[in-house]
Amino acid sequence: MLELYIDIKDELQAVENELRKIVQAKYQILTETSTHLLNAGGKRLRPALALYGAKFYNFDMEKVIHLATTLELIHMASLVHDDVVDASMTRRGKPTVKAMWGNSISTHIGSFLFAKSAILISRYEDTPLIFEVLSDTSVQMAKGEIIQISSSFDINQSIKNYLYRIKCKTALLISASAQLGAVACGAGSDIHLPLRRYGYNIGMAFQITDDILDMIAEQRQLGKPIGGDLRQGIITLPIIYALKHCKDKKRLVELVTKVDKSDDEVNEALEIVKESGAIEYSFDIAQKYIMKAKMELKELPDIPTRLTLGMAADFMCARKF
Amino acid sequence: MLELYIDIKDELQAVENELRKIVQAKYQILTETSTHLLNAGGKRLRPALALYGAKFYNFDMEKVIHLATTLELIHMASLVHDDVVDASMTRRGKPTVKAMWGNSISTHIGSFLFAKSAILISRYEDTPLIFEVLSDTSVQMAKGEIIQISSSFDINQSIKNYLYRIKCKTALLISASAQLGAVACGAGSDIHLPLRRYGYNIGMAFQITDDILDMIAEQRQLGKPIGGDLRQGIITLPIIYALKHCKDKKRLVELVTKVDKSDDEVNEALEIVKESGAIEYSFDIAQKYIMKAKMELKELPDIPTRLTLGMAADFMCARKF
Repeated sequence: MLELYIDIKDELQAVENELRKIVQAKYQILTETSTHLLNAGGKRLRPALALYGAKFYNFDMEKVIHLATTLELIHMASLVHDDVVDASMTRRGKPTVKAMWGNSISTHIGSFLFAKSAILISRYEDTPLIFEVLSDTSVQMAKGEIIQISSSFDINQSIKNYLYRIKCKTALLISASAQLGAVACGAGSDIHLPLRRYGYNIGMAFQITDDILDMIAEQRQLGKPIGGDLRQGIITLPIIYALKHCKDKKRLVELVTKVDKSDDEVNEALEIVKESGAIEYSFDIAQKYIMKAKMELKELPDIPTRLTLGMAADFMCARKF
Repeated sequence: MLELYIDIKDELQAVENELRKIVQAKYQILTETSTHLLNAGGKRLRPALALYGAKFYNFDMEKVIHLATTLELIHMASLVHDDVVDASMTRRGKPTVKAMWGNSISTHIGSFLFAKSAILISRYEDTPLIFEVLSDTSVQMAKGEIIQISSSFDINQSIKNYLYRIKCKTALLISASAQLGAVACGAGSDIHLPLRRYGYNIGMAFQITDDILDMIAEQRQLGKPIGGDLRQGIITLPIIYALKHCKDKKRLVELVTKVDKSDDEVNEALEIVKESGAIEYSFDIAQKYIMKAKMELKELPDIPTRLTLGMAADFMCARKF
């Protein structure tokens, strides 16, 4: 458990138990695959944000637990579907569902988890905002993934394209997590909108950091091989920057657009990107989002949780995994 | 358009327009893939059943159109995900999304359509039953597909296993279609429950017929190569029957469990199955479901639509595609 979560330890454990209960099914293959996913861990960032958000208004675990669980289910569903896409065989250092059970099972397990999340959401029939935000977010998440695939190896994409894509793919669900915990407890827009904007900004910083770590982390800490985006032709912020500012543009274009890269070629591309100052540039952009996130916190009541969320924002960029 | 739909022609056209409107997106790849799916056609059975069901109680197109559209979106999403599974490269005589765009895009297009359907459902916030039935149905559909994959090439499955699987995979959404059109218009359980049971029974007959047609139809009419289930190791009702009752059980087991079958081997297996009387047996089972469906219609008000639904039930077994 992350140290950040220390004051919601019991609540997060309750979410964990709920997740395990939900994926129990009569059919072994369903229980096995879903439990494998749960055991693979993850930061449980989305449930944690929902719980913290709820602290700003009449915190009620009964009201927020189903939402927190739903958010993790949607996230897990998107991870499994993502694995069908990127053909990566490990995630968080463990084999993916895809690697163990194949594309077809992964596709349906993802849908199974997603549909299970819909059942949980039906508990909030008196709060249509929750359903609206989550269904819209789910559409955008699928859209983000599709744009990512269809723009792979496309070296002409702009920073704006990139930011839109990671907003869809990552930031909106993190944003929804921070917002909807408070909504579930009955908070008004004076509370849940700043939380939403806070979530959006840390979500953007989170994904940019992810994309930086994919280039500079230690494989052991990242839990997957580095340079994965380059290998798959996913053009992230550091690459977009480097394509414009590096010394040997022609060589970088050659390496980035090559479909089957050798390890040496991946490493060469990584070196060119790093030398261009792209990592520092991307880190600055992430830091700007963190600053914006912290500004949003000022709109919220001054309770201890506000400080925790400020630390959580810093963690987005400081993490090494 | 099927002749059966003649008295809901305009309403079905409105659903068609709605479907086209919904899949329009700023991103070409999304619009292209979704429009491809729409153009590939299909029977639009689920929207039609929703419209017919609604005729039994204060029919109101405004109230039923979003539901009818949602049902087709869920169905389309499951077809695209299904294509990731079965590696079949054609459906309805046209290339599948998978064949044209690959597994990864298919997975996310399916999720995109599914999430879009969730947005439409939010129009029914005053009718929680719609949401409950559809989210539960979606869970069962994913479960049905997973069971199908995990039980492929397993010759020890029973008829009961098969019936449960096709209930999840197919019958529940058809059942929900017949039920929820009436629910959307405000009908009580005296109307929507018989409609649900009617839908369940024709849904079972529909899938059994599908599984029979996979063995005996003309490729031209079916729009995909016959013997597809055998090739993929999907053990359908005729095969389960034949495994018990055919003359050369040893040879059939050999053929059915062989992972890569030649065309000759598929044809040999088809011949053994046909000779065993399995087609007639399966057709009888389908007919029994049709009879049950018609019995349910007696519970409903005697309006002309009741006759149409009776004809629709007969069509489930009589169709050649």
